[in-house]
Order: sequence, then structure tokens, then C-alpha cells
Amino acid sequence: MRAQLIALDWGTTSLRAYKLAEGGKVLEQRSLSSGIMQLPKVPRIIAGRECTDGFELAFDEACSDWLDAQPGLPVIACGMVGSAQGWREAAYRDTPANVATLGTSLQTVRSIRGIDVHIVPGVIQRSRLPNVMRGEETQVLGVLQNLPGEAGEAGGDLLIGLPGSHSKWVEVADGCIVHFDTFMTGEIFAVLSEHSILGRTQQRSATFDGDAFDRGVQVALSADGEIGPLSTLFSARSLGLTGELSATAQADYLSGLLIGHELSALACAQRRRRNSVHLPSIILIGNAQLCARYSRALDACGFARVTLAEQATEHGLWQLALAAGLITLTLSR
Amino acid sequence: MRAQLIALDWGTTSLRAYKLAEGGKVLEQRSLSSGIMQLPKVPRIIAGRECTDGFELAFDEACSDWLDAQPGLPVIACGMVGSAQGWREAAYRDTPANVATLGTSLQTVRSIRGIDVHIVPGVIQRSRLPNVMRGEETQVLGVLQNLPGEAGEAGGDLLIGLPGSHSKWVEVADGCIVHFDTFMTGEIFAVLSEHSILGRTQQRSATFDGDAFDRGVQVALSADGEIGPLSTLFSARSLGLTGELSATAQADYLSGLLIGHELSALACAQRRRRNSVHLPSIILIGNAQLCARYSRALDACGFARVTLAEQATEHGLWQLALAAGLITLTLSR
Repeated sequence: MRAQLIALDWGTTSLRAYKLAEGGKVLEQRSLSSGIMQLPKVPRIIAGRECTDGFELAFDEACSDWLDAQPGLPVIACGMVGSAQGWREAAYRDTPANVATLGTSLQTVRSIRGIDVHIVPGVIQRSRLPNVMRGEETQVLGVLQNLPGEAGEAGGDLLIGLPGSHSKWVEVADGCIVHFDTFMTGEIFAVLSEHSILGRTQQRSATFDGDAFDRGVQVALSADGEIGPLSTLFSARSLGLTGELSATAQADYLSGLLIGHELSALACAQRRRRNSVHLPSIILIGNAQLCARYSRALDACGFARVTLAEQATEHGLWQLALAAGLITLTLSR
Repeated sequence: MRAQLIALDWGTTSLRAYKLAEGGKVLEQRSLSSGIMQLPKVPRIIAGRECTDGFELAFDEACSDWLDAQPGLPVIACGMVGSAQGWREAAYRDTPANVATLGTSLQTVRSIRGIDVHIVPGVIQRSRLPNVMRGEETQVLGVLQNLPGEAGEAGGDLLIGLPGSHSKWVEVADGCIVHFDTFMTGEIFAVLSEHSILGRTQQRSATFDGDAFDRGVQVALSADGEIGPLSTLFSARSLGLTGELSATAQADYLSGLLIGHELSALACAQRRRRNSVHLPSIILIGNAQLCARYSRALDACGFARVTLAEQATEHGLWQLALAAGLITLTLSR
């Protein structure tokens, strides 16, 4: 099957490359560690010239063989590659942002082998505490495209969750991102585990300790949790001191505690925004293991309907390439 | 003036040594970086023997000349030196813990030069999320001893705050520590500034940016702050991205945001515990610059009466040495 598009999901710490065929079907995919904050540094010859530019080197590593085989393949990319620290800045679009039309605002950078890389803009919400996303807007589009018509349109009763270093919770209406919140839960878990006193007594285990995780979630949701994460976090240490939490359980307990506080705060914020006790349906996008943790915790928080979306990035990039005319509907049929 | 006691405040990252005379008067004091997690490693001769033990080395550095001059001086120490990772474990006393009588529960370790070091036990609160302190119990005693009679007894309308890496908020009644909460605010600020994406855009400034700090506090106390610190923290980055927060203002903004969330949670917890909108008077103990930050933020949170206590550690250790009979009242008169 002949490829029609190269789609790149190019974030801070990783670069995922997809070779897509008709209808967005994935022919091949690769995952490299060449995120924009850890680009390759070893110079190499590209298009007959010695090249030292990290973006060019990463792009070449990711898909030069695909382009050698099919030189005319269009290339589209989303994520931090479009940030001020990226390859070419693609200015944010303001909320409410119609995700289907982001394809008409692509920013282009020409690689030294003469290939135009089309970069998807991020989305900004200019609230008192501003919020920004890059990459998630494409995943949201990928999800909306796959929803049954009514659900995609209604939106009002739907919240799209994108867990990660900085998790995003996105409200959509009429195909637009109308509001979103960011929680730094994943990064905070990582820095606390690696650099704080909580990490010193953690003993990492290869298997997920569901009981320890659920216990952390329950603490966050309990009356004891009302004092907030800055205080409850200390229990990951003090329960260890009293022999009530083993070293191997501490990491998953901390993970549950943090995710529990995130979702408890999210539930409150959603009820305030909707002025209703009713909580929206959730669609989760992201790493399968992390989504499994969030599913457990969402359930404990009273979010009744949680579903997982797959291949959201590839589907979103395919749709944006179509909207931008990089591929034509005729070809894709 | 002749010394009567060597008093050590021996924590995780520092060792403060005081040479005290009659009435607890400070004759000399020293601050070393030989906390129990960063003990000296270079062997030296102590009492005629080569010594490699980090606690012995640190103790020798801190006060061997004082002991050479007055070999019979008693030594008392509080802090993490009494933890399981310390020189000798001094088992926790349970809440309610009468701080004045902690002197009857000192744990002793004999140094290789034959000096007994008397170690103050910490305090544990065996609540569902346990809380522990080591060193703060001694500071609380030092503060209580200096209060006018009624205030020291009443206690019920008083909260003693000990800001630091792990800040403690201590309720006392009848000379006992009856309840306390821990917030990891200081350590979280440090690890986020050093190891997270928030630190990347921070430009450290030698001067305190009071406006940026107050702004952080106000965000934590505002309706936007209700979503909690895991989310509002991201504004230290996003306000930078939109040009609304300069690089030099970001560290103090983050500090204000975290301290604001701590105190907002503390105020709620206090109102729940007291079943009253009334907030207690505050006495702060600790680093002067940090206490100044907390004073500003406490004021913004509606804590009306805030006072600072000085020399709480020295006073507390002196009182405990008296209670333990290490020095006699006759001598101290």
C-alpha cells in the first residue's frame, strides 16, 4: 500500500513518526527520543551537506528512508516542534478554537533536503491564568472525528482528558475547544520521586501496586485530603516511618495521591462551571498504562462514563493534512 | 562568663552549635553544613584514634575546642540526629506531648572522646495520615517558655508556625503539643525550581520581588486558585509565555503561589477544627527572610495577629537540659 503522508508527533522528550496510507491507515511507525529538548548532536551528511542542526538531524533520522523511497510525500507535524523553542514557531490560536480548521493555519519550515514540514499551531486560552497546549489540539480533533455525529456535536456533556507530564482536560462544543485546564501532576510526580525526600525511601517495583494506588486516591478524596496535596504528600513518608506503607508501595501510593487530588479538584471545577452535581462523560487519550491509572481514579471520583480513544494523534494529523490540502480527498478515497 | 551547656540543633542539612552560659545566654554560636545527610568524610584523629565516623567528625568539628577548654560541659542535641538515620535513635513521643517533660526522655550516645550527647526525642501524631517532627518540639518549648503565663496556658487560640522545607503548624494546650500539620511547601518549591520546566524560565534575582510574591498569594486565594496547586502552578509558566510575568519575577511568584495555597488550606483546616470562622493568633519561628514571606501571606489570608519568636531553639534546649538535670538550677541562677 502506497504511503500518502508522513505525520510527526514531536514533543519535548520524544518524536513519533507515522507513515500513513489512504484513510490514515498506519503503514509504519517509529518512536525516537529526539524531542525538542534532547535533539541529536552528532553532525551527519544530509542532501550532500554536513549538517549540525538538531531539528534537521532528528527529522532525517525519523524519516529519510521514507522520503528516499517516495520523495514527494507531504509532511505534517504537531507538538512542541511549533513552540518558540521549536523548529519554527506556529503562533497559538485562541479559544474558542475550531480544531478542524487548524489545518488552514499551518506554519511551514523547509528542510535542507527541500521538504516542507507543515507545523500545526497550538491553542491558547487567555484566561486570568492562561493555558496553552501544543499537540493535544490535534489529538482532540482525532477523537472528535471518530465520535458518532450527535456526540461530536453535543460536546457539552463531554470532557476529553489527556494525561501526561502536564495533563489537559478539554471541553469542546460545536467542534471547538472552548475551555481547558492543565495539571502538572505527571511532572510533579517525577520530580518528587527523583529529587525529593519522598524518593529516598521509594523502592521501585516492576509491577503496578493497584492497592497502594487506590489507597492514595482514597486519601485524596477523604476528609483528610481536604488539606490539599502540599500537606498530604508528606504521608508518603510518614506512613513509611510508621511501617504502614512498604517501600515498594510508596511510588504507586504517591501516584494515586496526586492523581486523586487532580481529579478531585477537576470534579469540583466541573461542577462549578456546569452549576450541576452531574459530571461529564470522559474520553481519555494517551499512554495506555497511564490511562488505566486515570480510569481507576476517575471511577473512584464518580465520573461514571470513561472511554479510551486510540490513534487520536494519527487521525488528527491525517484530518489536518486533508484540511490543508496536503493530501486530496480523491487520493484518500 | 563561663559556659554551662553545649546545645546542638542538628538537622538534615545543617548543624548549629551554641555555647550557652547562665540563663541560656548565648556566648558563641556556629553554623556548619554537617547535617546528617551530608556528614564530613575525611578521617581525622580524635582522642588519639583515627576516626572515620561522620557523626564523630561533625561533632568534633562543631565543638572540640569548647570541650578542650571546659571538658565537663554537658551536651544536648535536637533534630534529625535522633532519627533512625541519625547518630542514635530517640524514639518519638506521642501526642499529646508535654514539651517541658521531653527532657526526661533523652537518649544518650557516648562519643569516642567520652562525652555523652543527650538527644531529644521527636514527636509523632498517630492520625490516619501520621505526622512527625524532630527539632520543632524543642522550638515550641522555647516559645512557650517565653510567653506570658496566661498565653502559654491558654494555647487554644494560638498556632505556632515553623516554616521550612517541611513547614509545621502546631497547636498547643496546657503545655502539650496536641495537634500538628506538615506542608512540604519549601521542598516542593526547591525541586520545582531546580528540576522542573518552571525552573527553566526562572531568572534568579538577588532581591525579593514583593509584588510578584503577593500576586502569587492572591492567585492562590482567588476563585482561580480553587482548582488547587497542581493546576495553578502551570501559570508560573503560562504567564511567562504571554509576557505577563517576567523571568526575574517567576521564582517569587511561584513562592507566593505555594505559600498562599498552604495558608489557604491551613485556614480552612483551622476553621473546620475549631468550628469557627475565627482564626488563631500565630507565632512564627524560623529563618527571618522566610518568616517575613509567611507574615505577608498570613496577613493576606486573614490571620490578624502574627508575631515572630527569636532564639527558640537555644531557649528550648536550655530548658530541656535543666529538666534533665544536665545543668542545675543553682548553677543557672
